[in-house]
Amino acid sequence: MLKAHQQITKTLVAELSLRNEGLSMTNLQQTDFSKWYLQTIQQAELMSYSEVRGCIVFRPDGFEIWEHIQAQVNAYLKQEKIRNVYFPMLIPKAYFMKEAEHVAGFAPELPWVTEVGTEKLAAPYALRPTSETTIGHSFKDWIKSYRDLPLEINQWANVFRWEKKTLPFLRTSEFLWHEGHTAHATEADARKRTRSVLDFYVTLLQDFLAIPVYAGRKTPSERFAGAVDTYSVEAMMQDGKAVQAGTSHYLGTKFAEAFDIQYLNQDNHLTNVHTTSWAVSTRLIGALIMVHGDEQGLVLPPKVAPTQVVLIPVGKWQQQPEILQQLATIQTELAATGLRVRLDDTDNTPGFKFNAWEQKGAALRIECGPRDLAQHQVMLKARDAHDKVAVPLAGLTTTVQTELATMQARLFTKAQARYHAHEHLNIDTLAQLKAYLTTCQKTHQIPGFILIGWDGSEETEQIIKAETGFTTRNIPFDPPVKKTIDLVSGKPAQYSVWIARAY
Amino acid sequence: MLKAHQQITKTLVAELSLRNEGLSMTNLQQTDFSKWYLQTIQQAELMSYSEVRGCIVFRPDGFEIWEHIQAQVNAYLKQEKIRNVYFPMLIPKAYFMKEAEHVAGFAPELPWVTEVGTEKLAAPYALRPTSETTIGHSFKDWIKSYRDLPLEINQWANVFRWEKKTLPFLRTSEFLWHEGHTAHATEADARKRTRSVLDFYVTLLQDFLAIPVYAGRKTPSERFAGAVDTYSVEAMMQDGKAVQAGTSHYLGTKFAEAFDIQYLNQDNHLTNVHTTSWAVSTRLIGALIMVHGDEQGLVLPPKVAPTQVVLIPVGKWQQQPEILQQLATIQTELAATGLRVRLDDTDNTPGFKFNAWEQKGAALRIECGPRDLAQHQVMLKARDAHDKVAVPLAGLTTTVQTELATMQARLFTKAQARYHAHEHLNIDTLAQLKAYLTTCQKTHQIPGFILIGWDGSEETEQIIKAETGFTTRNIPFDPPVKKTIDLVSGKPAQYSVWIARAY
Repeated sequence: MLKAHQQITKTLVAELSLRNEGLSMTNLQQTDFSKWYLQTIQQAELMSYSEVRGCIVFRPDGFEIWEHIQAQVNAYLKQEKIRNVYFPMLIPKAYFMKEAEHVAGFAPELPWVTEVGTEKLAAPYALRPTSETTIGHSFKDWIKSYRDLPLEINQWANVFRWEKKTLPFLRTSEFLWHEGHTAHATEADARKRTRSVLDFYVTLLQDFLAIPVYAGRKTPSERFAGAVDTYSVEAMMQDGKAVQAGTSHYLGTKFAEAFDIQYLNQDNHLTNVHTTSWAVSTRLIGALIMVHGDEQGLVLPPKVAPTQVVLIPVGKWQQQPEILQQLATIQTELAATGLRVRLDDTDNTPGFKFNAWEQKGAALRIECGPRDLAQHQVMLKARDAHDKVAVPLAGLTTTVQTELATMQARLFTKAQARYHAHEHLNIDTLAQLKAYLTTCQKTHQIPGFILIGWDGSEETEQIIKAETGFTTRNIPFDPPVKKTIDLVSGKPAQYSVWIARAY
Repeated sequence: MLKAHQQITKTLVAELSLRNEGLSMTNLQQTDFSKWYLQTIQQAELMSYSEVRGCIVFRPDGFEIWEHIQAQVNAYLKQEKIRNVYFPMLIPKAYFMKEAEHVAGFAPELPWVTEVGTEKLAAPYALRPTSETTIGHSFKDWIKSYRDLPLEINQWANVFRWEKKTLPFLRTSEFLWHEGHTAHATEADARKRTRSVLDFYVTLLQDFLAIPVYAGRKTPSERFAGAVDTYSVEAMMQDGKAVQAGTSHYLGTKFAEAFDIQYLNQDNHLTNVHTTSWAVSTRLIGALIMVHGDEQGLVLPPKVAPTQVVLIPVGKWQQQPEILQQLATIQTELAATGLRVRLDDTDNTPGFKFNAWEQKGAALRIECGPRDLAQHQVMLKARDAHDKVAVPLAGLTTTVQTELATMQARLFTKAQARYHAHEHLNIDTLAQLKAYLTTCQKTHQIPGFILIGWDGSEETEQIIKAETGFTTRNIPFDPPVKKTIDLVSGKPAQYSVWIARAY
């Protein structure tokens, strides 16, 4: 065991140093990240394309990743006594007209149901892009007095946003998400929930998906349409671009005013509620792949991998039935501890199987052949390790559990090291930024995340976006340094803000 | 404990005999079943109405019932190695045109998306009423050879059928369901899956929801649009009407032909696959309520009840903190065994709470007051029992588990007795049927299910429907008697068929 760990650690360090030098430019992942991504998700059989514009089919492994994420979210909801509900998918047009910012944000992307059978509807319905309006309508009925507060619910749903550019998992016309909606008596209570959820998202991303995140507050121009404050967790993909991985909104009394959601307080006065909403979606699957995948295909943190252990017979195993029996016993033992284990006893060659299961991101591979059988051992290889190691059958379950936990931690550490290598804290002017980007392009370097000073003006954001394609990601709660000068205007900075290109 | 059971059994018998005589006509459930139903689901806070035509909001208790059903279905799927997937909700219009019977069956009820933002789409999309067409399109890509078969998947989804008459849970424009879809090399394999699923539905309904079912084959006119054979489980509501609670379809090679789903068999010949599809939906929630509910409101089988045990302090409990402490201890102990327990420590009166929790269908009520505390006991009342009984604190967890299991079995037995009381096996002619229905109307008797002889002609079905409103439910696998003469034509019967009015 100790030897195995040392081996894996050594390999990791070698690989990381290669990558950090930015010199290994021969593989597809580094030369054409988009192409690599599309190839990887297809080879891993996570999805299929569909003939509905911008929509995909979630195949079993793709959907199972989502189910594991759902289980984590449901555990948080249960702990917080937030219950699941389901609202109609169709939203009457009139609802959208009630909150001006909200309608302005979503109107261009709304699909409309205008007919049923061969008859035209008197008033069209939109396919929900999010459910604040329709839930606000019910909150009005359900909330009468302070005793009804807080009212906290969640729904799992499909939502629609007909965006111009789509990309499987990361930006699809229809996607799956959970959306939490809460109403509170006070701003303080509502803001507390908003932040509690964001803290949960940090844990979900970092501890479960092994994706380090930048947690912070969105600038006004990047807020959810209708929010007073939007908080986000942002992740850095291996091409240095950002994915907004989860958001939590404090909506103030805007939806309360639009939908007339009031309660009688303890002094018998009608008072507006303060609402929040928050979501993570199936775009997390895209982030997982872009953060952890490698040239061989999918790499998944063991906690979320559909196949945590794959068992493969090698050598002349067809002539020695004990080998398959041995693997079947191992499968039973591992499965009994709750592990997700698959035994590949098809007629394909071992080499074919190794490759196929690497593409699919099986976390650990266990091989058993005639020699292993004789020596009471198996060969074990973690998906992210270069070499396999012999481990004794005795104590195999414990070995596997330790290996999986180690791999989970290793993927996080590896991603974190990559983030740090691509964070830039000392770019102070737009000229410096543009020079840096020119260098990046020439040397095929990844631009990554840049912490800049910001005077709080939308003008600065617009100029940066127009000239570099970078957008403000968020204002970190705890910036690594304090930037003092606005990148564009040169005025004193009010905030330190992460900027990056984003999906 | 023994005494408690005897008491409950005595009560049950008394109540059943009352009901079977059809004489107790003073309560709303018996005088206006529809009104009772709508009142019950509202008071139980299972749903709210929405402003989208025929759609409802599933509130926490309503949705939780569905989540418990989902867990049972997912367990079956896991056991059978059938994995979950997700397909786009929108279906291109061209897909519907490929299977003639299918389009004819669903076209009048399809909502169409014709615009996005302010732009008209070149080709409209339907909101899925079911997914055979869109899944067929993917099956064509995924299936190449016999090695790819069987291909068995399932999805949890919202579906849309814009029906003229709607009723909360039982018939809504949008509903939730699971839909299994499988492709097989042979008819035998496909039919085996079709029947295995139906067997599972029988177990789900009877063992989990305590709803007895009539399992059988649909007549051709009642088949799913595009099916070769449809099997169903039918349940009898307390007003004698039927609910089709689950269906499993053998689709033959119809969708294979329409969507060109072929495989290379072992002799290297291109061959059509045989497909199946099957579903249960949120209409099961409606069936649950209509089968088990009583004048006081919801009655839920303990296995599916969101609240399995409610704890209510009584007497001057506010002055004696030990009472609430005692109940909190009980809650912790019961919850530790996985039971769903709620402690109602609000300031409402005990009488108010008793009523509210009966309306919501809490399975067991446990009361504790000063006298109970002194005597190391609590009062226990099953939702469907008339009286409460004192039970000792010692061994309370076991007592509760036994009571819940007993109640689950009792609800099934009670429903079964009611079914038998409203089954009619000796109506042989249309004249007899009409005379019977006239009597029913005059005496406020429930018509129920009638087993008739059928010559297999659609004409017989049409005449029965036109003259009585009864439709064929299914041809039972194992009819209680063999009917020999067609009810309408007087010709020799080919089948014994259950007929009933249906939701």
